[in-house]
Amino acid sequence: MSVIGLFPGSFDPIHNGHVDLVKRSRPLFGELVVAVLNNENKKPTFSLAERIEMLNELFADDPGIRVKSFSGLLVDFARQLGAGYIVRGLRTGTDLDYELPMTLMNRRLEPDVATLFLFPASEYQDLSSSLIKEVFRLGGQPEGLLPELVERRLIERFAGDR
Amino acid sequence: MSVIGLFPGSFDPIHNGHVDLVKRSRPLFGELVVAVLNNENKKPTFSLAERIEMLNELFADDPGIRVKSFSGLLVDFARQLGAGYIVRGLRTGTDLDYELPMTLMNRRLEPDVATLFLFPASEYQDLSSSLIKEVFRLGGQPEGLLPELVERRLIERFAGDR
Amino acid sequence: MSVIGLFPGSFDPIHNGHVDLVKRSRPLFGELVVAVLNNENKKPTFSLAERIEMLNELFADDPGIRVKSFSGLLVDFARQLGAGYIVRGLRTGTDLDYELPMTLMNRRLEPDVATLFLFPASEYQDLSSSLIKEVFRLGGQPEGLLPELVERRLIERFAGDR
Amino acid sequence: MSVIGLFPGSFDPIHNGHVDLVKRSRPLFGELVVAVLNNENKKPTFSLAERIEMLNELFADDPGIRVKSFSGLLVDFARQLGAGYIVRGLRTGTDLDYELPMTLMNRRLEPDVATLFLFPASEYQDLSSSLIKEVFRLGGQPEGLLPELVERRLIERFAGDR
Amino acid sequence: MSVIGLFPGSFDPIHNGHVDLVKRSRPLFGELVVAVLNNENKKPTFSLAERIEMLNELFADDPGIRVKSFSGLLVDFARQLGAGYIVRGLRTGTDLDYELPMTLMNRRLEPDVATLFLFPASEYQDLSSSLIKEVFRLGGQPEGLLPELVERRLIERFAGDR
Amino acid sequence: MSVIGLFPGSFDPIHNGHVDLVKRSRPLFGELVVAVLNNENKKPTFSLAERIEMLNELFADDPGIRVKSFSGLLVDFARQLGAGYIVRGLRTGTDLDYELPMTLMNRRLEPDVATLFLFPASEYQDLSSSLIKEVFRLGGQPEGLLPELVERRLIERFAGDR
Repeated sequence: MSVIGLFPGSFDPIHNGHVDLVKRSRPLFGELVVAVLNNENKKPTFSLAERIEMLNELFADDPGIRVKSFSGLLVDFARQLGAGYIVRGLRTGTDLDYELPMTLMNRRLEPDVATLFLFPASEYQDLSSSLIKEVFRLGGQPEGLLPELVERRLIERFAGDR
Repeated sequence: MSVIGLFPGSFDPIHNGHVDLVKRSRPLFGELVVAVLNNENKKPTFSLAERIEMLNELFADDPGIRVKSFSGLLVDFARQLGAGYIVRGLRTGTDLDYELPMTLMNRRLEPDVATLFLFPASEYQDLSSSLIKEVFRLGGQPEGLLPELVERRLIERFAGDR
Repeated sequence: MSVIGLFPGSFDPIHNGHVDLVKRSRPLFGELVVAVLNNENKKPTFSLAERIEMLNELFADDPGIRVKSFSGLLVDFARQLGAGYIVRGLRTGTDLDYELPMTLMNRRLEPDVATLFLFPASEYQDLSSSLIKEVFRLGGQPEGLLPELVERRLIERFAGDR
Repeated sequence: MSVIGLFPGSFDPIHNGHVDLVKRSRPLFGELVVAVLNNENKKPTFSLAERIEMLNELFADDPGIRVKSFSGLLVDFARQLGAGYIVRGLRTGTDLDYELPMTLMNRRLEPDVATLFLFPASEYQDLSSSLIKEVFRLGGQPEGLLPELVERRLIERFAGDR
Repeated sequence: MSVIGLFPGSFDPIHNGHVDLVKRSRPLFGELVVAVLNNENKKPTFSLAERIEMLNELFADDPGIRVKSFSGLLVDFARQLGAGYIVRGLRTGTDLDYELPMTLMNRRLEPDVATLFLFPASEYQDLSSSLIKEVFRLGGQPEGLLPELVERRLIERFAGDR
Repeated sequence: MSVIGLFPGSFDPIHNGHVDLVKRSRPLFGELVVAVLNNENKKPTFSLAERIEMLNELFADDPGIRVKSFSGLLVDFARQLGAGYIVRGLRTGTDLDYELPMTLMNRRLEPDVATLFLFPASEYQDLSSSLIKEVFRLGGQPEGLLPELVERRLIERFAGDR
């Protein structure tokens, strides 16, 4: 039976560090579910629908990648999907200290789901959606951080702010 | 085609934290190679042959787990095996700071090999082969840290020291 | 003369990691004051009165444990009580980096008050009031994290939210 | 040609740890620009004008120190000034994990601007504007943390709150 | 019944950061045992007898402080003494990552013994016996790091090396 | 008067991360002294003379860079040179925890010498002389980590080992 992986996140918006993690972890799974956290009450930059649309467009070529949204407990969602693994990126010791309690709690709630961590490539060590948005919002346009379709949308989004 | 994983270590000796990582990562791979570092010049507690023997005995039931030894560059060994993933345990920020340069260097040497990190279960957070050996050497016999066959051998080994 | 200890926190609500710290540090002190931060303006899940009531119920058996509330500077409160020690839990390096400046500042303000740190037991490494509340709010009901009377109240509290 | 340094911050208000960094890094530069972040929308304790006034008063003796405000991307501001170096204080590993992505991003946006980090003196290890304000707001008046003119203003500011 | 504390270390030699920890933790205990690790095989700078002699001289005034040596498991020694608490200093996240597994292992071996951590005063944040020895060995003579009787001996010891 | 900087290290051998630090910090100083630690008793891969020779060759174009060796206390050497700044690279929280006590001790010994830290570029985050040597020793030949003249010598050096 094929192994299912779950890559959760806000993806507001997805950046190239995320894409790298998807590509690197993809061969481990028969199916990889990219799961967008439904956090509409937190006023995301892109709506849930927009984020899902971008992800679907990005991963359209690979039928083994499915894009879904979730709310509620992550491990409940993993159980519904039959996913045995959660995939997370890890950059620093502070990230680790943030992830450790959640990973232990998830293992407590659902011992059959394991969490896998990957370091991003060194060229993506500085990437986070919030830092990238801050830079674009202030008028910076660094290249190579975002998939092209995402970069175009982000520039449009912030153009309206000025 | 099946994905091959590589779990490298000194395994001097293997402890239950290691066994937990093997079990948790095992379903990801068609074949998981547990690779014992040949560090005979560092006067290990158990010889390479002994360590391999214990690992073979422990994982005898699973034909998809192969025990091998290696010296030289880990990524060269991964390439020879056709392994696309290296599996590592991670406990603290200090561990991360130790693993990060090696992981980036490995990616530099062989971009097609990724490193996956897993946290041990909370009951194994304090386990390392060296700490366990220190405890047994000083006469402590904590339960549940080592596979039974390993614990028996370790007690014998240190009995000769007194 | 008996030594007085001060264990401050939001206790919104108290969890078993807190209870473990109270039990482990208790023998050090003639009297241990569990001090609830009055942070009503931050919309706590349980009101100050509710938190105090739960703590009083939990520690009713031990006349050497007193439950109090405080606002203002912690070291001023310690001075009023005649407490020479503040007790704090510590889980990760990020916790330490958060505690270090406060501890140095407290020592600066009141050199006669020392801060003692304890690690929680490994089975409580993932516990924080906020993570536990998040899990219960989303419908998870992990066992063994909360004193029974607290767990019952927390489930009631979130039942109203759905 | 003289080298220009840029020391950015909120300086809400400036404390003695900041002053120490200015003094220690000052000889490196022909001109050091102390740049106050324009974050009026975050309801700072002191207005931008007040913060600039205090800094101007503090560094009035040194014609090589200029006080400016900025908004927008820090590296754009550095480029406008012709500054080749950004100066930052660093206290803990958590600080480092916060600074690292920003520093890498800044280098990505403007490779010709480098960031220099200095540790504060050990007697200033616990200083941050927010912790100092919290202490004064709650009635503590520790000595030696703030330049005199700043301390006087801060006490006045919080006197109105009671 | 009085509570017994155990402050273990190499104390090769004791420095003022250690003395500060002894003074700050002393009121917690009816008796505080300062326990010198017998590590003669590691070629310490001062022999076990010399280290014990210095400690005895330093703490001669306080009948509630006893100086002892130990080898073997620390928790076994704690049990023999009837000590319920181990006292340790903690400076950085790296220290914490070193202490955490030992503390968890000690709790596993002897659940009735707890470990208390204290931060040193900020003026002692840079002190470790090995760094102090390195400085004195190279001819530095910083003041205020060592008790007078220890400083005199250390200078004598290294005088012979030149 | 021109400011003198001091960049100390083992440089066994110098790698491109070091070169990057020299280039980035160079404009801060009238003169930058690259100081090779005389640690011949530690059996370095390259002798002190060889390391100095390589550094001299590398920085021959810049008359403002002087290569020197030192033993003894770093701050004593800084004082002799009239250097007001020590330059150090910083990669992780573990690095910081190692540098912090030394920096505070140096400030204690010589308050007029400050230490500046720089992060390496992200492409050099994994570089340390020891990791690079380990890779070359095991037959790896990653490109772009070492100045050409250093790489040639390192390959020769290890060729003799096989």
